[in-house]
Amino acid sequence: MSAESRILTLLRAIATDPAARGLSDDVALLETGGARLILTSDMMVEGVHYLPADPPADIGWKLAAVNLSDLAAKGAKPVGCLLGYALSGDESWDAAFLEGLNEALSYHAMPLLGGDTVKMPPRAPRSYSLTAIGEATGPVPARSGARAGDRLYVTGPVGDAGVGLELARASPAAAGPLVEAYRRPRPRLTEGALLAPHVHAMMDVSDGLLLDAARMAGASGLAVTVDHIPLSPALEAVRGGSTATQIAAARAGDDYELLFALPAAMKPPVRAIPVGRFAAGEGLTLRIDGAVVPLPDSLGWEHG
Amino acid sequence: MSAESRILTLLRAIATDPAARGLSDDVALLETGGARLILTSDMMVEGVHYLPADPPADIGWKLAAVNLSDLAAKGAKPVGCLLGYALSGDESWDAAFLEGLNEALSYHAMPLLGGDTVKMPPRAPRSYSLTAIGEATGPVPARSGARAGDRLYVTGPVGDAGVGLELARASPAAAGPLVEAYRRPRPRLTEGALLAPHVHAMMDVSDGLLLDAARMAGASGLAVTVDHIPLSPALEAVRGGSTATQIAAARAGDDYELLFALPAAMKPPVRAIPVGRFAAGEGLTLRIDGAVVPLPDSLGWEHG
Repeated sequence: MSAESRILTLLRAIATDPAARGLSDDVALLETGGARLILTSDMMVEGVHYLPADPPADIGWKLAAVNLSDLAAKGAKPVGCLLGYALSGDESWDAAFLEGLNEALSYHAMPLLGGDTVKMPPRAPRSYSLTAIGEATGPVPARSGARAGDRLYVTGPVGDAGVGLELARASPAAAGPLVEAYRRPRPRLTEGALLAPHVHAMMDVSDGLLLDAARMAGASGLAVTVDHIPLSPALEAVRGGSTATQIAAARAGDDYELLFALPAAMKPPVRAIPVGRFAAGEGLTLRIDGAVVPLPDSLGWEHG
Repeated sequence: MSAESRILTLLRAIATDPAARGLSDDVALLETGGARLILTSDMMVEGVHYLPADPPADIGWKLAAVNLSDLAAKGAKPVGCLLGYALSGDESWDAAFLEGLNEALSYHAMPLLGGDTVKMPPRAPRSYSLTAIGEATGPVPARSGARAGDRLYVTGPVGDAGVGLELARASPAAAGPLVEAYRRPRPRLTEGALLAPHVHAMMDVSDGLLLDAARMAGASGLAVTVDHIPLSPALEAVRGGSTATQIAAARAGDDYELLFALPAAMKPPVRAIPVGRFAAGEGLTLRIDGAVVPLPDSLGWEHG
């Protein structure tokens, strides 16, 4: 068991309120005073979740986007957020960060309501947190509701952000759609709101298609077969479409597409790509071009 | 203008929603779906907000307490919180931190609902954030509502935590009520709920009596005279009661008593000590033993 798993065990012993959903979903669901609130909080740490050379406006955008993506996966409407901000000591950097944050918040109609700013000790890596609050507009899908026979869908291709990160690592000046996918992910709020009333289970693909599909299956007490890994034309243009490329794309994190389970007879109400199927049993099976392939040692990004 | 003031100016340009209260209060007030929510988020950074040698259980307690204190100042009932936690790399340290956090949350009936854990780069100072959500049970006092003629009160003596910090700095093994005041502040939730329907303005004393009284007066467009600095017997026992000690106590942070403005004719519904009076005009006047004394260069703890 990893250090993170052990701390999660300790946290679960504290977070016993039903609203915490056993800390096994990406969000909490708090019903209070007539409101049904979706709560999520994600941190980003320099050198862990972003590259120190990433443009500050993109880091700000991404902090907003990853939190909004958790709301999207529950079909929630953004109603407010709070920022925890570590001053950089460089005011133009701070201003650019806040400009990017504001772009993402404004674009998705998410009001910034407050938070805290702190000075860090000299040379400390900086960290940021955002707590996002949404309001449920109907049923709130969990990870755990998939049923045997359901199809598994994703709202777009996977792997772009992973290749974008590699390109950005190789050169801070890298640009183009793959780097954009890594730096400026688009939370699928519209799709999430349209999907939430129909899906049996939904989550965002933040840690890789294979890992997140396995998590949905595990939470639902089912087996899942992933039989298609959708690649974008931009990714195929730089990496081709080999089995190795497909597996790499299915293990890459940071895509923030929505992953959902839908009855086989139902057509998704939004553009989505079928990528697999749930069945009784347990575990993940990967098929590429019809043939079962061995699973990679690591299914995705187990981040700290 | 300090770097923090400049970033606050940038943040105010983004946080234009009325729920943000212009970022001039300690909390946001969000009305959604029939609920009236009080939102606050405070970070603690190693070496800035606590001493690296502080016991981890006390750091966990304090993170909960400082956020609960912001709810107390608005008379709010705790309904849920989200934790941002930087893994220390030392599991017994993490376990002790969470035990202290849980003690404070349980004691104040605040459910932990979720959050995020991150790994920090090696040797990075750690930081923690908590976002606390409360529900308003009646009127929600702001900092800005004091009126000319109001008396200024505080719910307990000031300066204990400041001396406790000095003692803890001198020796990590220091103990006793002053160190306890620094390490285990008690948010005044019961007092806040009883006071909220009656006060004209209320806030917690996190940065020192003088600075916070000046802020309340400034937000209310008034002048304030502080004419009494209440010291605890424990503080007088180690520091005496000289003018210098009184001024130091009035500049010390981390007390988390409630500071409030009440009409002169009204008796406070909780135990409280009158410490001053509001009048038309602006600025802060300090009187000790009846005589006006010059203000210290720094009124309190302008933390980052």
